Amino acid sequence: MTYVENGEEFTRDTNYIETRITADGRDGYPVEPGRYRLIAARACPWAHRSIIVRRLLGLEGAISLGIPGPTHDPRSWNFEEEPGGVDAVLKIPRLQDAYFARFPDYPRGITVPAFVEIETGRVVTNNYPQMTLDMSTEWTQYHREGAPALYPEALRGEIDEVAERVFREVNNGVYRCGFAGSQTAYDEAYDRLFTAMDWLVERLANQRYLVGDTITEADVRLFTTLVRFDAVYHGHFKCNRTKLTEIPVLWNYARDLFQTPGFGDTVDFDHIKRHYYEVHTDINPTGIVPRGPDLHGWLEPHGRELLGGRPFGDGTPPPPPKAYERVPAGHWVPA
Amino acid sequence: MTYVENGEEFTRDTNYIETRITADGRDGYPVEPGRYRLIAARACPWAHRSIIVRRLLGLEGAISLGIPGPTHDPRSWNFEEEPGGVDAVLKIPRLQDAYFARFPDYPRGITVPAFVEIETGRVVTNNYPQMTLDMSTEWTQYHREGAPALYPEALRGEIDEVAERVFREVNNGVYRCGFAGSQTAYDEAYDRLFTAMDWLVERLANQRYLVGDTITEADVRLFTTLVRFDAVYHGHFKCNRTKLTEIPVLWNYARDLFQTPGFGDTVDFDHIKRHYYEVHTDINPTGIVPRGPDLHGWLEPHGRELLGGRPFGDGTPPPPPKAYERVPAGHWVPA
Repeated sequence: MTYVENGEEFTRDTNYIETRITADGRDGYPVEPGRYRLIAARACPWAHRSIIVRRLLGLEGAISLGIPGPTHDPRSWNFEEEPGGVDAVLKIPRLQDAYFARFPDYPRGITVPAFVEIETGRVVTNNYPQMTLDMSTEWTQYHREGAPALYPEALRGEIDEVAERVFREVNNGVYRCGFAGSQTAYDEAYDRLFTAMDWLVERLANQRYLVGDTITEADVRLFTTLVRFDAVYHGHFKCNRTKLTEIPVLWNYARDLFQTPGFGDTVDFDHIKRHYYEVHTDINPTGIVPRGPDLHGWLEPHGRELLGGRPFGDGTPPPPPKAYERVPAGHWVPA
Repeated sequence: MTYVENGEEFTRDTNYIETRITADGRDGYPVEPGRYRLIAARACPWAHRSIIVRRLLGLEGAISLGIPGPTHDPRSWNFEEEPGGVDAVLKIPRLQDAYFARFPDYPRGITVPAFVEIETGRVVTNNYPQMTLDMSTEWTQYHREGAPALYPEALRGEIDEVAERVFREVNNGVYRCGFAGSQTAYDEAYDRLFTAMDWLVERLANQRYLVGDTITEADVRLFTTLVRFDAVYHGHFKCNRTKLTEIPVLWNYARDLFQTPGFGDTVDFDHIKRHYYEVHTDINPTGIVPRGPDLHGWLEPHGRELLGGRPFGDGTPPPPPKAYERVPAGHWVPA
C-alpha cells in the first residue's frame, strides 16, 4: 500500500513479481500439488479473491493456505496470532522473510496474496490478478470434480473488460476515496466510484451475474469489494453516498454471492474491520474499531433466483470448508 | 468541548453561566425585545435547539440571531465568514470577546448557543437547556400569534424525564462514542446509545411525538441529534449499528419533524458536516469532508399523520424564515 502525498490522488503500485506457476513450468515453477503455499490474509480484498477461487475450484488439497493476522507493521504481514508466532508450514514470523529469501533487497511492499515455494521458502509471485486466473487455467488437473469454469474461454474478453473497469473504478476506487490527499482529489474519487456503482446497478438489474449466467472471476473480484463496503469503505474511506444495503440491486447481488458456498464462508468481518481501522492510523488515529454495522442482513433472502442463472454452471457447489480453514464463528455473520 | 484522556470515557463539562433572562428580571437581565442577541451556530446541535425554538415561537423580532461559521479554533466560535469578519450587530470577530467582556478570565470553553446583551457586548448565559425553556416560559409576551406550547405545564414532568434520558443517552451518547478514549469505552458507549435508540423506537412506534400529541421541547431536543445522525454521527463518531434511514420508526419520525415548518428549514447540512469533519482533527486528521450521504430521502413522505397528533396543537405553523435567516439553498436538502 502506497500512501499518498498531501494534495494528490492515491495511485496504487501495480508492479508485482510476475513469475508464474504454470502447467508447463516455463518460469521454473511448475504446477505440482504440495509444492506451494498460498499466503492470504482474510482481511485483504486482493488476497480474499485467491481464497475464494481456491475453494470454489477445490484446490485445498493441492495448495495449502497460510493466514496472516489482520494487522501488520508498515513493512509486512505477519503470523503473530499463529501458534508460536510463525506460519505452521513455512516457520517464518513475517511474510517479508519469504520475499527476502528470494530477493534479499526486495524494495516494494510485502503484499498478500503470495505463493511461496515451501521447500525453498521463497516467494514465487504476488501478482494477484494472474494468480487467480492461473488457478483456473493452469491447475485444471487438480480441480475438484464439479469445479465451476470461472474463466471460460468463450467469455474471457468480456470478463477481462468488466474486471478491468471494476478494478479501476471500484476495487481501487474505494481506496482512491479513502487515501485522497485533498478534498478535491476525494470529491473526484467519490464521483468516479458512484458513477461506477450506478453502472453496476444497471448491468445487474436484470442479469444475475456480471458475465454470462454463471459465477465467474468477474463476480469474485467485485464481491470482495462489496462485502467490505458497509463494514469499512462506507465510514473509514468515506464512500458514503449510501450504504450497500441501500442499493437494492447490488445488495441483493452481494447477498446472493455471500450465500453461495465458497463466498460467504470465506468472509471474516472481524479481520476486515480490525485490519482497516487498526492499520490505517493516518486516517483513524485512535485505532478504535466500530462495533457496527449490524450484519444479520447478509443472511436474508435475496430473490435473485428469479433472474435465472446457474451459479456453478454444469458444476456443483464446493463442500463446506475443512475445520482448520473455517472462519471462527464469532468473526462471521451472527447466525 | 472537552476531549478525553486516553482510555477514558468522554465526560461533558456541564458547567455553564447560569444567569437567566426572565420576565421579572431577577438576575438583572429582564426580557426585553431588541436587548439580546442569540449567537447560535447552525452546525452545533445544542445551538440548533435554540434556533428551532426561536422560530417556532416567532421570537425573531424580539431576539436577533448571529450565526458563527461552521468551524472554529480550539478557543472560540468566530464570525470569519461574515462580512468584515465580525458579527453584524456585536461587531466582534470571535464569540470569545463577549465572554471576556463579562468575565475577563473566563476559564471554560466558549460555547454556543449564547445570549449576549447587545449594548454592553457581554454574554448573559450559555446555559442551553435553560435558554430554550426560558424562551417558552419567560418570553411569552412576545410569542407570535399561534405559537405552540413547547413546554406546557401539565406535561413538564414527562418532558423533563424523557429529555433527561435523551440528553444522557442520545444527545450526549453520540459524543461518548466519538470521543471514547479506548476500545472498551467506545464499546460501552455504543451499547448505551443503541439501547436508547431501541427505547425510542418502542416509544415512538405508535405515538407521533415523544410527549403528548403535539411537538414539544422534547422533540426539538431529539431532532437535533437525529438530523445529524447519518451525516456525521454514523461515520465520524462510529455510531454505526445502522443508519437512521435503516430504523424505520425513527427515520419516519425525524422526517415528519424535518418537514414541519421550523425544523427542516433551520438545518444546514453543509455547516454540520464541515464542523464535525474539519474541527475534530484528532479523529479526522485529513480534514476531508465526506460528500455523502445522499439527502433526498428527507423530503419523502413519512406516513406519520396516520398516528394522529396535532403538530402545533391549538396553534399554527410559523411562516417561512425571513430571507436573511434562510439556510443557503446549496446547504440544504437538494430539491
